Amino acid sequence: MTQAISRFPVPSLQELPEDIRTRIEQVQAKSGFIPNVFLTIAYRPDEFRAFFAYHDALMDRASGLTKAEREMIVVATSSANQCHYCVIAHGAILRIRAKNPLIADQIAVNYRKADITPRQRAMLDFALTVALQPYTVGEPDFEALKTHGFSMDDIWDIAAIAGFFAMSNRLANVSDMRPNDEFYSLGRK
Amino acid sequence: MTQAISRFPVPSLQELPEDIRTRIEQVQAKSGFIPNVFLTIAYRPDEFRAFFAYHDALMDRASGLTKAEREMIVVATSSANQCHYCVIAHGAILRIRAKNPLIADQIAVNYRKADITPRQRAMLDFALTVALQPYTVGEPDFEALKTHGFSMDDIWDIAAIAGFFAMSNRLANVSDMRPNDEFYSLGRK
Amino acid sequence: MTQAISRFPVPSLQELPEDIRTRIEQVQAKSGFIPNVFLTIAYRPDEFRAFFAYHDALMDRASGLTKAEREMIVVATSSANQCHYCVIAHGAILRIRAKNPLIADQIAVNYRKADITPRQRAMLDFALTVALQPYTVGEPDFEALKTHGFSMDDIWDIAAIAGFFAMSNRLANVSDMRPNDEFYSLGRK
Amino acid sequence: MTQAISRFPVPSLQELPEDIRTRIEQVQAKSGFIPNVFLTIAYRPDEFRAFFAYHDALMDRASGLTKAEREMIVVATSSANQCHYCVIAHGAILRIRAKNPLIADQIAVNYRKADITPRQRAMLDFALTVALQPYTVGEPDFEALKTHGFSMDDIWDIAAIAGFFAMSNRLANVSDMRPNDEFYSLGRK
Amino acid sequence: MTQAISRFPVPSLQELPEDIRTRIEQVQAKSGFIPNVFLTIAYRPDEFRAFFAYHDALMDRASGLTKAEREMIVVATSSANQCHYCVIAHGAILRIRAKNPLIADQIAVNYRKADITPRQRAMLDFALTVALQPYTVGEPDFEALKTHGFSMDDIWDIAAIAGFFAMSNRLANVSDMRPNDEFYSLGRK
Amino acid sequence: MTQAISRFPVPSLQELPEDIRTRIEQVQAKSGFIPNVFLTIAYRPDEFRAFFAYHDALMDRASGLTKAEREMIVVATSSANQCHYCVIAHGAILRIRAKNPLIADQIAVNYRKADITPRQRAMLDFALTVALQPYTVGEPDFEALKTHGFSMDDIWDIAAIAGFFAMSNRLANVSDMRPNDEFYSLGRK
Repeated sequence: MTQAISRFPVPSLQELPEDIRTRIEQVQAKSGFIPNVFLTIAYRPDEFRAFFAYHDALMDRASGLTKAEREMIVVATSSANQCHYCVIAHGAILRIRAKNPLIADQIAVNYRKADITPRQRAMLDFALTVALQPYTVGEPDFEALKTHGFSMDDIWDIAAIAGFFAMSNRLANVSDMRPNDEFYSLGRK
Repeated sequence: MTQAISRFPVPSLQELPEDIRTRIEQVQAKSGFIPNVFLTIAYRPDEFRAFFAYHDALMDRASGLTKAEREMIVVATSSANQCHYCVIAHGAILRIRAKNPLIADQIAVNYRKADITPRQRAMLDFALTVALQPYTVGEPDFEALKTHGFSMDDIWDIAAIAGFFAMSNRLANVSDMRPNDEFYSLGRK
Repeated sequence: MTQAISRFPVPSLQELPEDIRTRIEQVQAKSGFIPNVFLTIAYRPDEFRAFFAYHDALMDRASGLTKAEREMIVVATSSANQCHYCVIAHGAILRIRAKNPLIADQIAVNYRKADITPRQRAMLDFALTVALQPYTVGEPDFEALKTHGFSMDDIWDIAAIAGFFAMSNRLANVSDMRPNDEFYSLGRK
Repeated sequence: MTQAISRFPVPSLQELPEDIRTRIEQVQAKSGFIPNVFLTIAYRPDEFRAFFAYHDALMDRASGLTKAEREMIVVATSSANQCHYCVIAHGAILRIRAKNPLIADQIAVNYRKADITPRQRAMLDFALTVALQPYTVGEPDFEALKTHGFSMDDIWDIAAIAGFFAMSNRLANVSDMRPNDEFYSLGRK
Repeated sequence: MTQAISRFPVPSLQELPEDIRTRIEQVQAKSGFIPNVFLTIAYRPDEFRAFFAYHDALMDRASGLTKAEREMIVVATSSANQCHYCVIAHGAILRIRAKNPLIADQIAVNYRKADITPRQRAMLDFALTVALQPYTVGEPDFEALKTHGFSMDDIWDIAAIAGFFAMSNRLANVSDMRPNDEFYSLGRK
Repeated sequence: MTQAISRFPVPSLQELPEDIRTRIEQVQAKSGFIPNVFLTIAYRPDEFRAFFAYHDALMDRASGLTKAEREMIVVATSSANQCHYCVIAHGAILRIRAKNPLIADQIAVNYRKADITPRQRAMLDFALTVALQPYTVGEPDFEALKTHGFSMDDIWDIAAIAGFFAMSNRLANVSDMRPNDEFYSLGRK
């Protein structure tokens, strides 16, 4: 018995537009499996293109935040939104990026107790404010971040990643997007 | 005295990449002014491209939801996130799309009391759940929507619009994105 | 087709006690229309008399707060209570009192982002605490207000206005009190 | 050592306007002491007159709710607002009106577990909605109340009492209005 | 007519194991009645033994907190959890321990307004954080407590008492555990 | 570099009372390591004895709930309280008890989306109500559980386990109790 990966129709690779199929095949070649987010969002090709272009613009760009730190933001805010797919898939990516088998579970359960630096704690405090009470953001938040050496460019990154996953978490929760079984154990040893 | 439109650097049109400048000039030609969201997000050209591609994929596509209904979702969820830019700019668009000078303020203050149909009320109830408690979405939500004749495709639209503006509201709140003065009075007569 | 202005019976002017009819006719003469709050509350003449006596005692008295500032308190707290009538009717009054067509919408959506002074921000922070978490009010709130030059008399005014509209917002939400169409556009030019 | 009864200046009886002094002396004659709310609100004579006129219009009128039931609404909603004065003073009045030494503490702690009828439970469920989430009130609330035999007139009473004490609770919390020691033990035997 | 003291079966004294019956008879001899918590929890003898062993370990040990202070923690946190049994029974014990007929009601309604010392206020602020937002506890909480002279041992006591009654409040709310009528008036004179 | 396992002093095995040392050595022999909860709580020997007696009374008794189901309750409620130790240690136990390497992470992130039966979903809905809003528990909760075949005895188990871990989560969050590294990977293959 296999579990559905989405409440919505999931297209087969063959019926997808060329560019989308190619993108998915590249991921498959690299990862050894197709992460379900690709198949779920492919239900809407135009949204697929915009979604992954946005994702890459944020997660692959040169930044004052390391790739592991960006994944910390994803895991912490996705946990606040109780998003299966994002916590489990990005938890795996965080373990790999940080070369730390414990960090993803720690941040998912309670980032305040995780083995992170005070600077990373400030980053996640802000990311959670953006995720949960964005209307309160103001000067004191910026001052706290600058105390830890974050530039305005870094702050945009934190906010934009928290914002992008605010969207992703909602899509995943509505579609019942199922994380691939592979993600649960990746990066644990 | 002019007010800043963003906490972050705002590029001049001349320094922007050709495609972005062209897009902005088209909007300006059509609207008579440049909505500040274009200038604020242009701080990051790659994100700009993905943001507006995503926006157009959702807001301009053929859909079971009218354009006015899609704007209702934007206004209702952006109000829950207390987002100046989105409530005021999309409030104007809603007034124009719905040809109703009262509807945007009604939905912004309390959509439960607005002059909308029971079907639209169900649509906004769901959009607010997606905006505020996405982790609770489940079978009863889908059943309630189907009772009002929404298809799975329509439901994706509601969720995706609520999700996209979950992101936009966060970017706008963090950047202190200022709505253009023009939006306040558009569509009121 | 006309919309009901209240879930409860609305008396005609003729059947109202003399003093109440006179009061309403004076407002009508001055405004050009009868604000629906008068007709809705007139369902209960004794409560009508107390309600408007209280309103006038707070809103018309000599005070360290300007009339526009008092309306800011009304709009900000009524928005937190999602009260159609109070946000829309007092939004109009605020625009007129402040001679500012933008300020009411700004405060209704998110007072933290509005074009107000730091002193007004402190006033509204306190008003929102009174509206939403009155049980936490204590010495630190008073100290913060005094830093901005508010006297004890001013603080009473802020609290009493937030309190009076805590009541009004509840009456309006339960009665589905409908703001007159005229209010939406008043003071916008 | 005596405790202050208010953060604000408390007028002496002699300096009060004739009508207010008379009202207070009547209460004192009847109760054997001056409830502190009279002295606290007398700081503002016009507000005093409106406050007690409003109070009497709601609490002394002929109504489908008994006087004990009206006090139940006061105690339940004032407890939700954590209001010392109102819970303790009106708790005493409730014990006396209901001739039940246990009922006030039960309702103050958790009205859902109190020795009340299903009809009273429905009344308090609605009163708490009015107190805490007034923006959600709608048709289902009215239907639930009608099932228990409440008329529209009764529903207004519930809402208006919850609304009036929403105001009173805020005044009492801001002024640190102290309940008289006498109230704690009244009606317990 | 007598009210049930629990939703669950209540064993008779005779059918209880010897040690439990003895414990209950000792309490009865001392208090003049059997507090209902003993009969309710006796539904599960092993849990009874652990429950009261835990209770005594916390409430009877030598501590930097007085017995009255420990009861303050119980009353304040149990009020936040709206627990009939614990607020009313431990309110009585608090009145007796503190030799103060007013303190229990004050703390139950709003501990921030109670006649307590700044040190006790800090103790209760922490206890409420433990009760309601335990995941946020961190260094600033410990620093605030140390400012008031609390040792690490004292802090453990506050947390453990708040934790134990987090459990008790849940058992009492689920079982509809009814406080004995005697508790309401104990210690009031 | 080793991380502290508690904010409070951690006794060495040698200095512990005989019965406690024996208990800990038995666990160590069985598990291959000493779970940190034993060392953290051993700071207080009397509380240690009551804590583990209570734990065993609930988790080891014959019950209508399987051992895996009881661990589901622990993981789901501990996640709501963001408790590092309990989610990670009991997540491991759940994986082992359920012979399912995915279930613990699923329940920790969002139990509504986990691979569980409708009966288990009802069990966890109730456990979360007990954990987060115990004051609302009433007849409808009991009816919903009975629909799924839960007996009153089962319901006590659910409530008592949610209650016991309400306490444990608070102790762990205040003490910064650190889960042993071993737990993160146990039961994943």
